[in-house]
Amino acid sequence: MNRHRLASELKRIFPPERLLTGNLERRMYSYDSSFLARFRNYTPDAVVLPRSTEEVAATVKLAARHGIPVIPRGAGSGETCGCLAVRGGIVVDLSSWDAIEEVDVANMQVFVRPGVVHYRLNEYLAAYGLFFPPDPGSTRMCTIGGMVANNSSGLRAVKYGTTEQYVLGLEVVLPDGQVITTGGVNCKALKNVSGLNLSKLFVGSEGILGIITRIRLRVWPRPKARGIAMAVFADLEEAPAAVLDVYRSGILPSGIEILDSSAIRAINMYNPEINLPDAEAILLFEVDGNPAGVEWEGQKIVEVVGKRAISVEWATNPGRMAELWRGRSVVAVAAARLRPDGSRIFAGEDISVPLNKVTEALRRIKELGRQYGVAVVNYGHIGDGNIHTAPVINLENPDEVERANKLADAIHRLAIELGGSTTGEHGVGAVRNQYALDEHGAAVNTMRLIKKALDPANIMNPGKLLPPEGGAGGA
Amino acid sequence: MNRHRLASELKRIFPPERLLTGNLERRMYSYDSSFLARFRNYTPDAVVLPRSTEEVAATVKLAARHGIPVIPRGAGSGETCGCLAVRGGIVVDLSSWDAIEEVDVANMQVFVRPGVVHYRLNEYLAAYGLFFPPDPGSTRMCTIGGMVANNSSGLRAVKYGTTEQYVLGLEVVLPDGQVITTGGVNCKALKNVSGLNLSKLFVGSEGILGIITRIRLRVWPRPKARGIAMAVFADLEEAPAAVLDVYRSGILPSGIEILDSSAIRAINMYNPEINLPDAEAILLFEVDGNPAGVEWEGQKIVEVVGKRAISVEWATNPGRMAELWRGRSVVAVAAARLRPDGSRIFAGEDISVPLNKVTEALRRIKELGRQYGVAVVNYGHIGDGNIHTAPVINLENPDEVERANKLADAIHRLAIELGGSTTGEHGVGAVRNQYALDEHGAAVNTMRLIKKALDPANIMNPGKLLPPEGGAGGA
Repeated sequence: MNRHRLASELKRIFPPERLLTGNLERRMYSYDSSFLARFRNYTPDAVVLPRSTEEVAATVKLAARHGIPVIPRGAGSGETCGCLAVRGGIVVDLSSWDAIEEVDVANMQVFVRPGVVHYRLNEYLAAYGLFFPPDPGSTRMCTIGGMVANNSSGLRAVKYGTTEQYVLGLEVVLPDGQVITTGGVNCKALKNVSGLNLSKLFVGSEGILGIITRIRLRVWPRPKARGIAMAVFADLEEAPAAVLDVYRSGILPSGIEILDSSAIRAINMYNPEINLPDAEAILLFEVDGNPAGVEWEGQKIVEVVGKRAISVEWATNPGRMAELWRGRSVVAVAAARLRPDGSRIFAGEDISVPLNKVTEALRRIKELGRQYGVAVVNYGHIGDGNIHTAPVINLENPDEVERANKLADAIHRLAIELGGSTTGEHGVGAVRNQYALDEHGAAVNTMRLIKKALDPANIMNPGKLLPPEGGAGGA
Repeated sequence: MNRHRLASELKRIFPPERLLTGNLERRMYSYDSSFLARFRNYTPDAVVLPRSTEEVAATVKLAARHGIPVIPRGAGSGETCGCLAVRGGIVVDLSSWDAIEEVDVANMQVFVRPGVVHYRLNEYLAAYGLFFPPDPGSTRMCTIGGMVANNSSGLRAVKYGTTEQYVLGLEVVLPDGQVITTGGVNCKALKNVSGLNLSKLFVGSEGILGIITRIRLRVWPRPKARGIAMAVFADLEEAPAAVLDVYRSGILPSGIEILDSSAIRAINMYNPEINLPDAEAILLFEVDGNPAGVEWEGQKIVEVVGKRAISVEWATNPGRMAELWRGRSVVAVAAARLRPDGSRIFAGEDISVPLNKVTEALRRIKELGRQYGVAVVNYGHIGDGNIHTAPVINLENPDEVERANKLADAIHRLAIELGGSTTGEHGVGAVRNQYALDEHGAAVNTMRLIKKALDPANIMNPGKLLPPEGGAGGA
């Protein structure tokens, strides 16, 4: 079906202000935050902005009739081309469908539409003394629908896990346009083991099995207290060892972040006032809970980590906590300033490795950076082995771009070699599906069987998550 | 294929001591803890006791060739006929394959074979300062494989969630005999979002999608301290309200248990020395964490719950904690002693309801008990709305048996009416699949599509979890 015919069919479903078919409008939907999107033209044939399950279902049914790809999209803050029309089709932009429909305080859960922004949800829940623990760095942009589709997490996954832990049920428009509710049609229970666990299958499925239109999330009581410990290390090896010592002392911090020497240097160049000590690594421990428990854990961290660190400082005062956290909070921006013509790119940016391989991973990523002549800054969630590498390159230089791509590939392969994964929290999309066979082996066939059973015509977000049939190539 | 031919084929795979084909031996595998199994003859055609993935795969391949059902089994402690050969076939008893293969302390995970008993695993992990938090009542019997297949939990699900939260990866023999590893073939990372989340799909799938042969579990640092608060209520309504007050004060106890008046009476009859106060409800709060934090939360619970309860007692002394917990620990046994000719049965025993429906559920279960003339004792995990009802009947009286079945059906329907589920933690098996369409509506079709994609010949544990095609009937 040509674009004009498609537009006229979509006009029967959507009012003009929620149907985008102009060239410029469509072009706005041709990129996300990924490196790959900069070099491709993934412009969709049409964009729709639904505000009801019926509109989503009608769109999917239309697409199914004509074999047109459908690509769900949240804020577009992803780094994997996950929300891009890599094979053309209709982008379903859910970001304006942002109703918080019900906060059920008595049952500790909240019902939202997919477009609700993470930050806004937690602001809203705070009035009830509740919170939704996962906290991605993109909190002020990313949507709950996108978080569910990608099983997002962030700083607090060490203690609080990832989005999947909080998903009690989903309304989903399937690839044939049928609507189902997972976790029980009218269920408001917190615990339920009846049926196959479809909720958890859809979490992290990146839109290849259907479009999530309503989300039932478990929320938790907001902790009353918080504290931050900052530890400075002369020897990189001591940092993961200190993390393990903390775990062994019976403490599960809400987050443990690492800045390696590359990150420390970038932060100090970006803002000399922050003035981080010149060291091989800095660890930041965040602890939350009740005031007495937080203080106990802070003192214990000082005692335990102090045996390996040059210095440890513990703070519960909000001003001092913000100061200790300041380096971490600017690292993503600081990386880009490593060189005046540099841009920080998202490629090989999200590997996870076993905790006992973190040191080796950081060392070898630095070596790979030198080998390919690309500056890299490393930071991340060391508490669960999730390393964010920020390559910094001149985007105008094709040779640097090529070397950056080779570096990203080498980092992904390093992750697999070390018994890790190419992605700890950002997802696969069209940039990491080429590694699926290496990571998952024969399990990829099982994933394909499920995909085919639900979407035999392959219209739901094609070219993502799974490698193409018959090979391990890209999208 | 007749039983003798089957036995001779299985002899090529198993040594004689791990292949059971005698009448008495097979009869031993015809029941679990469910009520239904008492009245059926679900004797398998053969029983095998594998000790390797190869043996399991060879068994499944043999079964697939001949279209014979395969039924995985752990300890047989389930209450749903989940491990019984409701359509004949080969029971795969995994309980003797109980190796704890690796405790990887540095990476906070453990690798086990399916037959490891829960209690033994935690005893083993204690030496490393680690633990696997879910704690079913059947801890001394149930296997980790069974826990994964049923997504088991127990007292501590309020804070620690269910088994699924800890499953990082699985080795699974699929219905065609192929072996896959979910969560990454060689992965030891704690965080991994690449690929469809097959691990979580297999958790709770009750053996209908494959046989779990190896389990990679995340484990946590063992908390250093623990405390128990016991609160006594004159008014049943106040008990769930007190639970919510505790949540609102920012506390997430590791467990919150309820004993209603029926349970209190049963416990005091069973052992007058326990001498629980004659009240409408007793709540037991368990708190764990670090010593200072536990004490803070205990005092807060006394303060908050004290506003609604007749009395609240807080203890951290192990002896006193055990005394406070004593009633709860004997309730399952005590229920059976309500009458001299009585047996406690497992039917309608595991509903979950929204927290704000717990009072109504308890009241109406009592009414239903009166209506059907069946004595019931109610206890359970009120913190997540999971109610364990224990009907007590004379098994020799066919009329009572019939009334008990009607009562169980009414309790299951009540759960759905109240926005809950027929099963909070025990599973579906062959006793609750008749409610799947009422609970899940059109999502049952999606479950069926997945089942058919992986097991087109329906040999893996047929008659369980999903209702039979074309209707909402039983197994």
